[in-house]
Amino acid sequence: MPDTASLDAALKITTGPLPGSRKIHVEGSRPDIRVAMREIDLTPGCGEEPVRVYDCSGPYTDPTAKIDIAKGLERLRAQWILERGDVEHYEGRAHKPEDDGLKPGETIGVPVFDRAGLRPLRAKAGKAPTQLAYARAGLITPEMEYVAIRENMKLAELKAAAIARDGEDFGADIPDEVTPEFVRAEIARGRAVLPANVNHPEAEPMIIGRNFLTKINANIGNSAVASSVEEEVEKMVWATRWGADTVMDLSTGRHIHATREWIIRNSPVPIGTVPIYQALEKVGGKAEELTWEIFRDTLIEQAEQGVDYFTIHAGVLLRYIPLTAKRTTGIVSRGGSIMAKWCLAHHKENFLYTHFEDICELLKSYDVGFSLGDGLRPGSIADANDAAQFGELETLGELTHKAWAHDCQVIIEGPGHVPMHKIKKNVEKQIELCGEAPFYTLGPLVTDIAPGYDHITSAIGAAMIGWFGTAMLCYVTPKEHLGLPDKQDVREGVVTYKLAAHAADLAKGHPGAQLRDNALSRARFEFRWKDQFNLSLDPEKALQFHDQHLPAEGAKLAHFCSMCGPKFCSMKISQEVRDFANAEAGMAEMSEKFVKDGAEIYHTDKPAAAE
Amino acid sequence: MPDTASLDAALKITTGPLPGSRKIHVEGSRPDIRVAMREIDLTPGCGEEPVRVYDCSGPYTDPTAKIDIAKGLERLRAQWILERGDVEHYEGRAHKPEDDGLKPGETIGVPVFDRAGLRPLRAKAGKAPTQLAYARAGLITPEMEYVAIRENMKLAELKAAAIARDGEDFGADIPDEVTPEFVRAEIARGRAVLPANVNHPEAEPMIIGRNFLTKINANIGNSAVASSVEEEVEKMVWATRWGADTVMDLSTGRHIHATREWIIRNSPVPIGTVPIYQALEKVGGKAEELTWEIFRDTLIEQAEQGVDYFTIHAGVLLRYIPLTAKRTTGIVSRGGSIMAKWCLAHHKENFLYTHFEDICELLKSYDVGFSLGDGLRPGSIADANDAAQFGELETLGELTHKAWAHDCQVIIEGPGHVPMHKIKKNVEKQIELCGEAPFYTLGPLVTDIAPGYDHITSAIGAAMIGWFGTAMLCYVTPKEHLGLPDKQDVREGVVTYKLAAHAADLAKGHPGAQLRDNALSRARFEFRWKDQFNLSLDPEKALQFHDQHLPAEGAKLAHFCSMCGPKFCSMKISQEVRDFANAEAGMAEMSEKFVKDGAEIYHTDKPAAAE
Repeated sequence: MPDTASLDAALKITTGPLPGSRKIHVEGSRPDIRVAMREIDLTPGCGEEPVRVYDCSGPYTDPTAKIDIAKGLERLRAQWILERGDVEHYEGRAHKPEDDGLKPGETIGVPVFDRAGLRPLRAKAGKAPTQLAYARAGLITPEMEYVAIRENMKLAELKAAAIARDGEDFGADIPDEVTPEFVRAEIARGRAVLPANVNHPEAEPMIIGRNFLTKINANIGNSAVASSVEEEVEKMVWATRWGADTVMDLSTGRHIHATREWIIRNSPVPIGTVPIYQALEKVGGKAEELTWEIFRDTLIEQAEQGVDYFTIHAGVLLRYIPLTAKRTTGIVSRGGSIMAKWCLAHHKENFLYTHFEDICELLKSYDVGFSLGDGLRPGSIADANDAAQFGELETLGELTHKAWAHDCQVIIEGPGHVPMHKIKKNVEKQIELCGEAPFYTLGPLVTDIAPGYDHITSAIGAAMIGWFGTAMLCYVTPKEHLGLPDKQDVREGVVTYKLAAHAADLAKGHPGAQLRDNALSRARFEFRWKDQFNLSLDPEKALQFHDQHLPAEGAKLAHFCSMCGPKFCSMKISQEVRDFANAEAGMAEMSEKFVKDGAEIYHTDKPAAAE
Repeated sequence: MPDTASLDAALKITTGPLPGSRKIHVEGSRPDIRVAMREIDLTPGCGEEPVRVYDCSGPYTDPTAKIDIAKGLERLRAQWILERGDVEHYEGRAHKPEDDGLKPGETIGVPVFDRAGLRPLRAKAGKAPTQLAYARAGLITPEMEYVAIRENMKLAELKAAAIARDGEDFGADIPDEVTPEFVRAEIARGRAVLPANVNHPEAEPMIIGRNFLTKINANIGNSAVASSVEEEVEKMVWATRWGADTVMDLSTGRHIHATREWIIRNSPVPIGTVPIYQALEKVGGKAEELTWEIFRDTLIEQAEQGVDYFTIHAGVLLRYIPLTAKRTTGIVSRGGSIMAKWCLAHHKENFLYTHFEDICELLKSYDVGFSLGDGLRPGSIADANDAAQFGELETLGELTHKAWAHDCQVIIEGPGHVPMHKIKKNVEKQIELCGEAPFYTLGPLVTDIAPGYDHITSAIGAAMIGWFGTAMLCYVTPKEHLGLPDKQDVREGVVTYKLAAHAADLAKGHPGAQLRDNALSRARFEFRWKDQFNLSLDPEKALQFHDQHLPAEGAKLAHFCSMCGPKFCSMKISQEVRDFANAEAGMAEMSEKFVKDGAEIYHTDKPAAAE
């Protein structure tokens, strides 16, 4: 086995704060609740407070944190989990060569994370250590308090700035202030999930629900064709640096178990997987050879490692498969097509459906959340909102209620490719059929004709569906449909989805969402270039674009940019207009005069507008 | 004066067809109506017809066309214009050094286009040579027939493919088939414009209106800080190559007249400008020194060159300026801030407003269309839909009716920065106040916090506002707010807006809009990689992205890509599912069996879904 001690240098993890930013921690009701946030400092003397923003990046952006990926992140939830007294350490499943795609006797070709004797946790007999069970029992966990503080960060500022709430939330129930009790109540009624496997204590608690800030997920993962362990861990760190709220590890090649261990031990965000991918590896890629036993064993393997949510394609029922036969693009979900093949080969109902209650019991023992997969999602505009898709959604609704009966947390996956006029119906049906369980959608892409730009075609759909009520948006990168995304594609995809999620929050009227827009726009209007860059979602790209034409440091003080040049800068002239007016008479006085005069001298055709 | 003959080589204009594409011409009722279109050939033997698409690129993508930019494009409308008998050649305004920002006696520093003695045209006394006047008089011009054929291209195919119309058009009046008479009627009632200066006969006729395909505009132009004549002409060709329906030349530096001449003589699409920019150059950048006479002279100068539409900021009234004083970002339109400064400096009403009827008479003589500028558009989320913006819109409505009374064609410019929930109101108010004159919007950007990604934040708003009824979308590039776009930024902006416009057409239910999506999706499902690339908006980027991981020519025949690899390709498995089902029993038979059995064996909880 290779030496893990040398790995640190080899991994080249991106660390250090974003430009102009500091990591801060807000303490809760007990000293071990320390909620990480980011504060962006503005130009001294500008008269503005630092801007506090939601921060997914974990300790990697904290220069005072000691990062040692061979040891993994600090286990910040370990004590909270143990003190509830409903879980116990146990021996755990023995590692098998096929977990990493190895033949018996074959040596693993990547470093193995040293768990230092740490054994997995699971529920004591008869216990349900899930955030849903706690919420239903009326318990506010430290995790719930953490997310309340985390979601609520901007409200004090909001009150100070006296920004009126404004938005259309389509019947959501967004509070003025997020209290721990509100978090508990939303989890209790299944309207939000707090993904928190008892074996992933390193993750910083976060919440996914329609009445909270819209979240985004980034997919990473090697494939048979490209990538390596080192790249995958760095991709996770990189994705959270730019704003991924959760990360799905969709690896399908060799060393899948070893890679996942590295990712989870070092991840500050919840990790999701699609266990059927690994199960398929174990049967040599032959869908028809999958069995419930192999799948179950894979669930245990991944639950023990600490995966926080599993995509389970239990809604791909035998009777829906013929509905896909005349589709333009058939079945485009990998998990969906695998299960469809199994169903047809055996002429039996999907074993994920027939064993659903077994899966519930298993997931409950670790508090792994369900992400009920949309195996029959449309893969083209032509197939959107068809009978196969909505048939499966109905089954997902049925399964949601079953999972809830087992105290399991549930989110529902959604499409896909949907033209704009058919998006809203997806949310309405999902809310109705799935009892308001959080919706988690991939895009949707609003046209099929722009491969190479599908982060954009899908961001259009994502912003809209987020506005309508989707709780988490699964990102799409520019490489969608074409190839495996590299690091820059991941960044492009994450930032694109971050802006779509933020646009949704603005439109829903989330209190405080507009504070950052306002701060950035003021910086723009006052030519505080560095503040404008630092307040943006990607400060480095903003700076780089600006500097292509005006690289000199002095240009960051200039009252123009290369787009219009000094004479034609509207912001500059507008400032002059303001100064001019103030100097002459005072704008208020002038305004009064115009109103008093009825403005009739200037307006011969109709009376002055009173808008 | 430099020799123009050598310019050709120096200019390095991009020519040649897009991959897999051919230029075709569809003849109208007379042999000189030859409507250019693009046909994309698919893999021989795939059983699919070539796909015909709308083509903005002019002769540059036609390998049989002889391109000589020193001579300009063929003057395809020259005969149509003359045969109507309502225009005449005249001496034209004498060129002045200040037209190019030169001091008296200073020599011009760029090549000058040789007009070979060609004199400008304008209306004979008492005549109105505008497409609106013709339409009102019941005349179907060759231009109208051209756009009918151009818009209608896909409908024969649509009928063959029997795709049902589907969409939500919010009260638009989109016909099943675009006839020349429909074009005439839409122009006559002001609901569409056909920009066609009598001095720009090189342009291929196109139409802008809510009941036609959604169009996009690309801005080009040098500024004081960067760029050159050569780059600007190539930018125009480049922008139309990727799909710009019109191009606005927003140049503000020296050599503005000479550059514009090169652009217009070589442009296959209508050219728009903001004449106040050049007028301001003529008074040394001092807004307060602008006069009606200098502005009027500039309008004549540009109308004689052939500019097809002018942005005129006549709605920036003195009484609205105080309404901007407390805005977060004041006035962000260049033209708007210039006029505001002039108004305040003179304490007089905007001369564009007081001289509006003079401007109408002038524009009518050349059939230059009005693009009524939104000088008070919001530049931040905080300022969206405020009293200044909607006050100005009311004035633009008043001016629309005045312009129509002079037989002038009119479009109305719109915002800007608007959160998603406030977008629809913009369209509704514009339709109501401006009598359904076409709306032409910049984005809108749905959040302020993503400089460097503002082509995306604005594409979200653009797709939505296009769906709601905007007729033309003004593109935004990744450099917005940061600097002057280069060639790759122009391409990124154009393709992004092309996909947004297409998404709008799909959602509005334009007949035939979905044909290209369906063809591409079938190619994707059948692993016709080259067809997928060639059918996409940017075939070169799609190919390049695919080839990053799988460059071998053989991979273009493979039934997988580097994203999932061969074992996990859902498309491949889905094909297998289909084959399997067909081989076993025939999908139809299986389906029947399931229905007959009531599917009860597989579905214990509730009756089978009948969706």
